[in-house]
Amino acid sequence: MNRSRDEVLQAVREQMPEQRWAHTEGVMQCAVELANRYGGDPVKADIAALLHDVAKYWPTEKMERIIVEQKLPSELLSHDKSLWHAPVGAFVAEYEFGITDVEILDAIRYHTSGREKMTLLDRIVCLADYIEPGRNFPGVDHIRALAEKNLDEALVAGFDSTIQFLLEKKRRIFPLTVIARNSLLASLERTSSDSKA
Amino acid sequence: MNRSRDEVLQAVREQMPEQRWAHTEGVMQCAVELANRYGGDPVKADIAALLHDVAKYWPTEKMERIIVEQKLPSELLSHDKSLWHAPVGAFVAEYEFGITDVEILDAIRYHTSGREKMTLLDRIVCLADYIEPGRNFPGVDHIRALAEKNLDEALVAGFDSTIQFLLEKKRRIFPLTVIARNSLLASLERTSSDSKA
Repeated sequence: MNRSRDEVLQAVREQMPEQRWAHTEGVMQCAVELANRYGGDPVKADIAALLHDVAKYWPTEKMERIIVEQKLPSELLSHDKSLWHAPVGAFVAEYEFGITDVEILDAIRYHTSGREKMTLLDRIVCLADYIEPGRNFPGVDHIRALAEKNLDEALVAGFDSTIQFLLEKKRRIFPLTVIARNSLLASLERTSSDSKA
Repeated sequence: MNRSRDEVLQAVREQMPEQRWAHTEGVMQCAVELANRYGGDPVKADIAALLHDVAKYWPTEKMERIIVEQKLPSELLSHDKSLWHAPVGAFVAEYEFGITDVEILDAIRYHTSGREKMTLLDRIVCLADYIEPGRNFPGVDHIRALAEKNLDEALVAGFDSTIQFLLEKKRRIFPLTVIARNSLLASLERTSSDSKA
């Protein structure tokens, strides 16, 4: 990071409306708690959460230009624009804020879609984004309760809520989210069979 | 086809319990109706429906051997076994029953998963499999009603019911099914914007 945390914080805060900044603070707080609970790195969780929505309010055209010019996955362009700010945010974190830690960059990059074999930091930031105190959608309290006991079960429930929402709205589902959910379920099955062994 | 329709019918019937044969007859009847309604080929619809479940009751090991030996998509092996009979069925239709028509073989191959850019015959057989008269699952009557008016909307609703079921059961979702649904939604959006133009 080529700036102090406070400088980054001020710079990020200026790029979003006050309400979204409150959400970012909630994700930071929640990601640090989850890191402490599940043996993650709270410092990395804090920085990844701080930057996760840095590009959320950027103009669509600017995000599209970065996706094309930086050769980010072009399939994003045929999916919902609400997915774009995550890989664009990772790009901004690296080239504007000098973040070089791949774990932090990936946690930003995959915080909306998830991915196959998510790292611990990926899972912490993605789950914190679902359950930070300001979130209020059907089922969020169930996900919060699961987050007290099992990170992966909670994150599956988070992805379930996203997929359910998209089914109801007759909107397209990003295949990587299904792949992320499948990967978590496979991991939970292995853990379950290990504990039976 | 290197045998008469009656010979194929008898051979297929012998490979499944009576109840599944009744289902196959329902899919045949329904697929022919849908072909007539939506400008498909009723003869191809009849043959594809007749053969769609030919491998449904084959032993898992036999299906697995065919998937490996014939280099069918290996990702199938890490997904639910209930998906395997479709590509194996297409193999059997070709090599045991001498079906050479690619449209028929593909309709058998993709009748469970769907795929991107499904052909008319793919969609007819896949939808018939959801709504044949013997089917009885939550929402089937809604899909039947849609099938009277719009093939693609009905099939999206069919895939929705599958995805919904898998969410509720905490089971993995085959990504190709989501890709098939996305592709149908994109096609419906294009049709809708055409009709507004």
